[in-house]
Amino acid sequence: MSRAPTVDDVARLAGVSRQTVSNVLNTPAVVRAATRERVEAAIADLGYRPHAAARRLRTRRSSTIGVHLDPYAGGISGVVLDRFVHALTERASDRGMRVLVYAARSPEEEMARLADLLDGGEVDAVVVTGTFHGDPRTGWLSGRDMPFVSFGRPWGEDDVEAPAHLWVDVDGAAGTAAATRHALAVAGPRVAFLGWPEGSGTGDDRERGWREALASVGGRGPRWYAEEGVGTARAVVERVLRAGEEVDAIVCVSDSLAIGAHLAAGAAGLPGLPIVGFDNTPAAEALGLSSVEQLPERVAAGALELLMGATGSVVAPRPAESGSAHVLVEPRLVVR
Amino acid sequence: MSRAPTVDDVARLAGVSRQTVSNVLNTPAVVRAATRERVEAAIADLGYRPHAAARRLRTRRSSTIGVHLDPYAGGISGVVLDRFVHALTERASDRGMRVLVYAARSPEEEMARLADLLDGGEVDAVVVTGTFHGDPRTGWLSGRDMPFVSFGRPWGEDDVEAPAHLWVDVDGAAGTAAATRHALAVAGPRVAFLGWPEGSGTGDDRERGWREALASVGGRGPRWYAEEGVGTARAVVERVLRAGEEVDAIVCVSDSLAIGAHLAAGAAGLPGLPIVGFDNTPAAEALGLSSVEQLPERVAAGALELLMGATGSVVAPRPAESGSAHVLVEPRLVVR
Repeated sequence: MSRAPTVDDVARLAGVSRQTVSNVLNTPAVVRAATRERVEAAIADLGYRPHAAARRLRTRRSSTIGVHLDPYAGGISGVVLDRFVHALTERASDRGMRVLVYAARSPEEEMARLADLLDGGEVDAVVVTGTFHGDPRTGWLSGRDMPFVSFGRPWGEDDVEAPAHLWVDVDGAAGTAAATRHALAVAGPRVAFLGWPEGSGTGDDRERGWREALASVGGRGPRWYAEEGVGTARAVVERVLRAGEEVDAIVCVSDSLAIGAHLAAGAAGLPGLPIVGFDNTPAAEALGLSSVEQLPERVAAGALELLMGATGSVVAPRPAESGSAHVLVEPRLVVR
Repeated sequence: MSRAPTVDDVARLAGVSRQTVSNVLNTPAVVRAATRERVEAAIADLGYRPHAAARRLRTRRSSTIGVHLDPYAGGISGVVLDRFVHALTERASDRGMRVLVYAARSPEEEMARLADLLDGGEVDAVVVTGTFHGDPRTGWLSGRDMPFVSFGRPWGEDDVEAPAHLWVDVDGAAGTAAATRHALAVAGPRVAFLGWPEGSGTGDDRERGWREALASVGGRGPRWYAEEGVGTARAVVERVLRAGEEVDAIVCVSDSLAIGAHLAAGAAGLPGLPIVGFDNTPAAEALGLSSVEQLPERVAAGALELLMGATGSVVAPRPAESGSAHVLVEPRLVVR
């Protein structure tokens, strides 16, 4: 038959009532063995599958995780979030969960989308990406009865001892500390940091790793700022290098800034100046720049572990009830 | 109340039966106006929303489009497919459709995943990416009653006059032809092509654009091959350049190969050799290489247009019934 088989088809072939078929599917213990076998044979013959919507309605589970997909910004570092979504999709799939992606251009639009998904029972859990100081989404989600985990810490709060929600993140400070130790070892003591303007949780965390690694060997270095982007970074670094500032290496908060610094060093007559980026993007690899690899596949595994534990469905531990309410992934320096 | 309101809550507040609430939701014309208004007021007061699973079961529509997410290969050009998925998600969202992503490591695994999604009524339509010669997925999908569109042509078949299925693609030959004309204008007549080994639909199509553009001005140029990858391309191009082969410019089948060629030219003492890539990736932009931009946002718009037309749901035109069974997007050369 060309249409999908229904419960009625199964009932007709097995010579039983609709209700009996339904019983075999939902409460097989109440059906006599001989009848059950006849119904199961009809199900197999026809290739009948209970409609997912019916199963959802019965179980109130969608087996689906919602993930926000940021608008494509054309940048170099967006690839990290894309790798995270890829890895989450693959691992969720292995655990029998589906991934529904949704778009939103602002936190407000994202909350409106989430309200639709939650009200409609479309998702069992949500992964929020790109948290920031004063993020309205996490508080809003905490106030609903929806399990969620954020890729990104609850910045500005006590995120380890008493986290407001489940979170997974990359230890940015550990990454820049490793980058700084590497620069100290191969280049010299004057290691500069090229970071984003102060005030972003992620950026300030990465700066701290550089500062502490330098301080641990009694060193200090200049701190430069640039907005995210190759062009802005290039302009800033070319100006300070041409002004005569001497450094042995530059550790950068992102690969975009590292590429800008690399181009600036070349333009200022210092093509071999060691520069370390963050994100280990294809662009940094193509240019042969060392970079800190975030391991988004481990972040995705951590997010699912927090949401699902070892089980096959969302277990929704609240931070207070759970032994592990966060996963902090140690990044890895890729030296080139 | 902390749980979501149900039909029973609405019925209780409005002082009517469950059946009456259901009638108001599904067949309002059969309900007296005064009763309808009371039920609608109760729905508004409680913030009741019909459960999506129930709506799906009623309409047999999931309002969801399934898209395969390739495993992340770590390459430079994967960003094009990611941009396509981003754009598809945003535009589908604007049309009230959701996007469900699924992972699969082979065409066979993909068909197994699709069978689950289709049997379960999880998706109304599917977008297949990365079609190739003898692709088993499109024939398999054509044999089911499932609307689908492919990003990529039905290679090796008559894809314009009698396409086997809906498809959207980028006119690769037009892109490399534009790149070749640009190279002829700014560099000189000896324009080489660095392509993938013969036999891939996409690669052979891009080579044709170069060959025809050269032929139209009576020119010919060398044709080099490399497997996808910066390192392989660099080795091939460095060898031919060091062997004394003289060219004025190199048009490449991808940005990975273009970056390899760029590094090879630098190593062979020809740092300014004009090189044009394909995909306009952040890596090519960072290196200042010209490249052909695929406009994945237009590809996504084209895919939705084919699946949905101007309507708010999947209309599933079969190629034979539809005026436009394909969309071929003209790419744009970005000169740097």
